[in-house]
Amino acid sequence: MAKQKDGFVEHITPQAEDFSRWYTDVIKMTDMVDYSEVKGAMVIKAYGYGIWELMQREMDDRFKATGHKNAYFPLLIPRHLLEKEAEHVEGFAPEVAWVTKGGGEELAEPLAIRPTSETIFCSMYAKWVQSYRDLPVLLNQWCNVLRWEKSTRPFLRTSEFLWQEGHTVHATQQEAEEETRRMLGVYVDFAENVLAIPVVSGRKSEKEKFAGALHTYTMEALMLDGKALQMGTSHNLGQNFAKGFDIQFLDRDNQLKYVWQTSWGTSTRMIGGLIMVHGDERGLKLPPKVAPTQCVIVPVAAHKPGVTEMAEELFISIREAGVRVELDDRDQSPGWKFNDWEMKGVPVRIEIGPRDIEAGVCMTFRRDTLEKAGKPIMGIAATVRDMLDDIQKNMLETARAFRNEHTFAATTWDEFMDRIENGRGFVKAMWCGDAQCEAEIKEQTGVTTRCMPFEQQNLSAVCVHCGKPAKQMMYFARAY
Amino acid sequence: MAKQKDGFVEHITPQAEDFSRWYTDVIKMTDMVDYSEVKGAMVIKAYGYGIWELMQREMDDRFKATGHKNAYFPLLIPRHLLEKEAEHVEGFAPEVAWVTKGGGEELAEPLAIRPTSETIFCSMYAKWVQSYRDLPVLLNQWCNVLRWEKSTRPFLRTSEFLWQEGHTVHATQQEAEEETRRMLGVYVDFAENVLAIPVVSGRKSEKEKFAGALHTYTMEALMLDGKALQMGTSHNLGQNFAKGFDIQFLDRDNQLKYVWQTSWGTSTRMIGGLIMVHGDERGLKLPPKVAPTQCVIVPVAAHKPGVTEMAEELFISIREAGVRVELDDRDQSPGWKFNDWEMKGVPVRIEIGPRDIEAGVCMTFRRDTLEKAGKPIMGIAATVRDMLDDIQKNMLETARAFRNEHTFAATTWDEFMDRIENGRGFVKAMWCGDAQCEAEIKEQTGVTTRCMPFEQQNLSAVCVHCGKPAKQMMYFARAY
Repeated sequence: MAKQKDGFVEHITPQAEDFSRWYTDVIKMTDMVDYSEVKGAMVIKAYGYGIWELMQREMDDRFKATGHKNAYFPLLIPRHLLEKEAEHVEGFAPEVAWVTKGGGEELAEPLAIRPTSETIFCSMYAKWVQSYRDLPVLLNQWCNVLRWEKSTRPFLRTSEFLWQEGHTVHATQQEAEEETRRMLGVYVDFAENVLAIPVVSGRKSEKEKFAGALHTYTMEALMLDGKALQMGTSHNLGQNFAKGFDIQFLDRDNQLKYVWQTSWGTSTRMIGGLIMVHGDERGLKLPPKVAPTQCVIVPVAAHKPGVTEMAEELFISIREAGVRVELDDRDQSPGWKFNDWEMKGVPVRIEIGPRDIEAGVCMTFRRDTLEKAGKPIMGIAATVRDMLDDIQKNMLETARAFRNEHTFAATTWDEFMDRIENGRGFVKAMWCGDAQCEAEIKEQTGVTTRCMPFEQQNLSAVCVHCGKPAKQMMYFARAY
Repeated sequence: MAKQKDGFVEHITPQAEDFSRWYTDVIKMTDMVDYSEVKGAMVIKAYGYGIWELMQREMDDRFKATGHKNAYFPLLIPRHLLEKEAEHVEGFAPEVAWVTKGGGEELAEPLAIRPTSETIFCSMYAKWVQSYRDLPVLLNQWCNVLRWEKSTRPFLRTSEFLWQEGHTVHATQQEAEEETRRMLGVYVDFAENVLAIPVVSGRKSEKEKFAGALHTYTMEALMLDGKALQMGTSHNLGQNFAKGFDIQFLDRDNQLKYVWQTSWGTSTRMIGGLIMVHGDERGLKLPPKVAPTQCVIVPVAAHKPGVTEMAEELFISIREAGVRVELDDRDQSPGWKFNDWEMKGVPVRIEIGPRDIEAGVCMTFRRDTLEKAGKPIMGIAATVRDMLDDIQKNMLETARAFRNEHTFAATTWDEFMDRIENGRGFVKAMWCGDAQCEAEIKEQTGVTTRCMPFEQQNLSAVCVHCGKPAKQMMYFARAY
């Protein structure tokens, strides 16, 4: 196999044998990423980046449709700015990379590479916001950020990663809360309708919230190994940063008031989720909306008269229907190509050979169901488009069914432990809301609080772990 | 005026009075950029970033149409990698910012924030390229880079800036040279047909070429103050990096050979060029293709019956024609709005009032020619589209006429000096090609070599400065 060179794996490790190695095999063999000489930093190769570009386009359209504009703020943040909001600096300082030399000289003040940009946005908002007329400010930026991580995994946790971060400023607490919820809603819509990933959404515990936020909303997805992945978060920052950075405005009532703020972010981490929610033993399985190649045409017996010509005709008609299609005319056997494109997760494959042409049909293959079916060559473009729509829907339904089957309720600690060990998935249970209890659960089981879902149920009156009066239902899981 | 607050300028300094202040006034008053607390780093505000997004889309489409794909390589480059190509490190080391601490610890090896990414691309290419079958590699990345600059100006020269950098690998010298020229051609096409900026293109002198390149091609534009701006460069890297990084491939003839490489880049600096090629006393003047707002509708006497409704009707029909249109319903006088949108450089304005509606017309205003004309409301969308096409063409022609009028030939040193002092523009003259002569010209006049144009003329047999035999015709100018 062509992939053997350079120490690459020869075949994909089965998921059941070692899920973590399966993941690494898939991202390497499909040319999504490679490791660089900088510890913890990854190179996102063209195939992985192509997925990210499609994700960006879909998200960016949604941000603009909700009134946001893009801007770009500096990479480097002076230390004194990072230190202005006490909880924030405490949360992020340990992960910061510092620039101490520039242009051949020691710097008087070290500059942090942004781990997130609240502080630099706030330093500008303090200049820009004077009056209620200046509000709301609705900005987003697409950029790289850096957090010094001890153990890293491509897409899931790397020192540098790509993301978007929205930073908004509002006149009232209510508006800020609405914005925080609205943007989580945008993320959930994107996850379900573009990535075909069903999520649980709700509020983070005090311990798990963003450093400096009033509270944090999150969407959490369930991976095929039963672990949860935080896919995106939206923070109501309250007036914490406004007070730290002195962002005040003259309101309609002629009173000087602190603003209310939000921030929200998603990153290339979602690509890791995409792989681990949909993938199988053959490799990647991409939802059509983020597949760089949605349909591939593989000629069979291409040397026979008419095959290449018909493959090209199919290619042109499918491309004209707005489908991202490729014609694979590489000098390899059809079997090798089938394997290669299945591994890369391309949703639809079309095989065309001499006998098909005679019969006026071609063979189609769906990556999601592995179904093969002959289809008339006439009208093939519309057929492919219908298949892509159906695959997009089916992948979401399949993932939702898995998630539902792996979501358990527990009312006693024994039940909780059993579900965690044998169920492998989300466990929902009543919880007291106490940080000490949360820490004990984590220490004893490795399980963390994921979110208090918006849709609460009353499973029992007492905390599943400590037996104290329950405050809310919480989703628990082992997590990435 | 609303712009008075916060120490902003009240009016735009006339170009003739102080071009440099005119530039600063325009970028501040139009909300394109602001200064941050980090010396030399700018915040690109929504209006400036909106222009960059449109530029990116146009360029990215062209890169993809010429077979390139996007990828993303790490921000931080270990010192030993940066040092592998001798000329390259000599050229860039003085401008590098160094990360020396991360995660609370001193790093064993300092990491450079990329000033450009040849070295990190090459470190991966050495892994990826083994056989002629792996070639060519045609990658591009959109990212931020950082060069520690002593004196900075927004867009034109800032420590951090946004750009794209293409990095390609080829089997033969000829292919690499073709790629280098092809991508310069893409840049020239983009500059002329999107930015409406005519350029002179050709080769850089040995002194002005990229550190580590065999040779560098450039496109140079003439600003309204008579200074040149380098708008984009394309480098034939030869085998310099291939040898430094040991990038070899097994060719068809079974011989192990070093690859041939190119790199090419353009940046947010082009936005500075856009401002200084087209702007006037009223402010910015944007070519329709990169105008975030292409057409604005200003209702006059909006309180009169039917005006708001008609303005909305116009808005909808123009938007449906695919034009980026805004309806300005702010609580300000029409005159204030006219001024504001002219300053922002919006190509077409439509004014609509009660008498216009009665007559079935509206007033149109072209930002490029300052012409006002009544046009029928029927078919206004098509009218606006035609106007935008015409403005795009006219702006290129106007800029080309200015460039031609400010391009001079000189055959003697007296003539050269006279043209530089009194002509304010490009001076083309024969040159010996000697680095010492080039240095003397710069020292005596502040003028630098811009490029040896592809279209050579034979103006005389001897160098305009030193009188030695001439090797080629060179474009000279003062430059940003």
